[in-house]
Amino acid sequence: MIAVDWGTSSFRAYRLAPDGAIVDKRSAQLGILAVPEGKFAEALESQVSDWLDAGAAPVLMSGMIGSRQGWKEAPYAKCPAGAKDIAACLVDVRWGLSRSAWIVPGLSCRDTQGVPDVMRGEETQILGAIDEVTERSAWVCLPGTHSKWARVEGERITHFATYMTGEAFAVLKAHSILGRMMSDADVDPVAFQSGVLRARESGGLLHHLFGVRTRGLVGDLSNDDSAAYLSGLLIGHELAAVPRLSGTVYLLGALPLARLYSEALKSYGVDTEVLDADAAVRGLFKLAQMLPRN
Amino acid sequence: MIAVDWGTSSFRAYRLAPDGAIVDKRSAQLGILAVPEGKFAEALESQVSDWLDAGAAPVLMSGMIGSRQGWKEAPYAKCPAGAKDIAACLVDVRWGLSRSAWIVPGLSCRDTQGVPDVMRGEETQILGAIDEVTERSAWVCLPGTHSKWARVEGERITHFATYMTGEAFAVLKAHSILGRMMSDADVDPVAFQSGVLRARESGGLLHHLFGVRTRGLVGDLSNDDSAAYLSGLLIGHELAAVPRLSGTVYLLGALPLARLYSEALKSYGVDTEVLDADAAVRGLFKLAQMLPRN
Repeated sequence: MIAVDWGTSSFRAYRLAPDGAIVDKRSAQLGILAVPEGKFAEALESQVSDWLDAGAAPVLMSGMIGSRQGWKEAPYAKCPAGAKDIAACLVDVRWGLSRSAWIVPGLSCRDTQGVPDVMRGEETQILGAIDEVTERSAWVCLPGTHSKWARVEGERITHFATYMTGEAFAVLKAHSILGRMMSDADVDPVAFQSGVLRARESGGLLHHLFGVRTRGLVGDLSNDDSAAYLSGLLIGHELAAVPRLSGTVYLLGALPLARLYSEALKSYGVDTEVLDADAAVRGLFKLAQMLPRN
Repeated sequence: MIAVDWGTSSFRAYRLAPDGAIVDKRSAQLGILAVPEGKFAEALESQVSDWLDAGAAPVLMSGMIGSRQGWKEAPYAKCPAGAKDIAACLVDVRWGLSRSAWIVPGLSCRDTQGVPDVMRGEETQILGAIDEVTERSAWVCLPGTHSKWARVEGERITHFATYMTGEAFAVLKAHSILGRMMSDADVDPVAFQSGVLRARESGGLLHHLFGVRTRGLVGDLSNDDSAAYLSGLLIGHELAAVPRLSGTVYLLGALPLARLYSEALKSYGVDTEVLDADAAVRGLFKLAQMLPRN
């Protein structure tokens, strides 16, 4: 089969053996935003036409390729959902004389107040990593621009919540008064942890943010430590909002950020386990097994 | 006397009669950032040299003119502080043959965890409005880019806290993914209030922010209502963080924003009273009365 992890800014394709082993892989700066005028079939062919010609099938694609801005919108599957439920919502695309592929839907849920939440791509990563989650009920956290916290019970994702942590950090650093006092120094772990702890105090995030400035003004915080403190503050506020934070949290994401989350969670007395970040390909393989055999 | 409210982006000067009545006033786009190479004396002379020549004295100036980037840094007075305490920290500047003026210091405090907070200019506004605060102990709120909540007891400001609400709104609207779905429509009161109420639910601000996007994605929130909802959300989170929110809150600021805060506070069952926003001049007059007479 061919597994494609196709996001906003990147394209990664894998050719898999029948047992799921990766036989070959290719990647390109060909995220959906880089594909002109809806020419997604052409973009895919430009990367893997030889695999397709050789009869590799099926083709499964996950990520923003299934969004309104992608190849074809794949309506969100609804929580709770496991691999079978998500596979039941696969959307197919066809091109050329006899080519076809499946697009994985994203996942949606509503919180107790009815406010919706969505993910697209992360559900496939979680499916790929879910076998490593040994607790019966646990959080899987995917840190990032829009951090996802998914509650996994058995083989299913029961609900999840998104936190705009990474994006808030980026816009505050680049565009607010806080960024003016920040150098691009490496993240200092002490300053980071001090932000995490501050988040557990009273005052609220909007007040704590101003404290980044005042602590700098009075010399409590150096320009080199300021970004690390802000990062800890925001991640700390994310963690403070997650209900039922106990047991082991499974982190799914690139190492530098996963390590920061791991440090932050320590202050909550919570253990963490970092899962293999390349889980999308395994999730796509798992979903392919659910397709009816021809 | 001459009272000068000299901020980052604006300059306002008032000539006052001995009883505090405004005899004349002038304003200019001559905030401290617009004054070249520290030429503050020249800038002041360019606006009010005729008043100075006529012997109007003393000259008192409040706002960012006393900051590190201003004419001369006026170190923060410390909370708790009333007019007398602040007047004791006035800093003088001299220029020309015999000209002089006083710069009002800002105010600082530390919260129970030792994190500092500062204001510069708002303390003078509060002093000017403090006589209208009829409760023995009450909050005075100055909504804005960096909202200030000052606790006033009798004639003194006992402590205060700053919330980065207005700036967070501005950078999120202009630079985050949330802004992409926002029109520049007038603030819809229903959408605003819905954001205020959302802030009282669980989930935390970073999660609630992502909800602005998802509610838009699924059609729960129109592009016209999106900015109002975000505004309500942020102001709601500010209010949720203010301790001892009861009785009457005194709002000191321009009307459109003060009205929004008033609406938001209603949902907390809190009454509001809007104070005259031009309080700085009265605060400067009050401070001038504390100067030793020559």
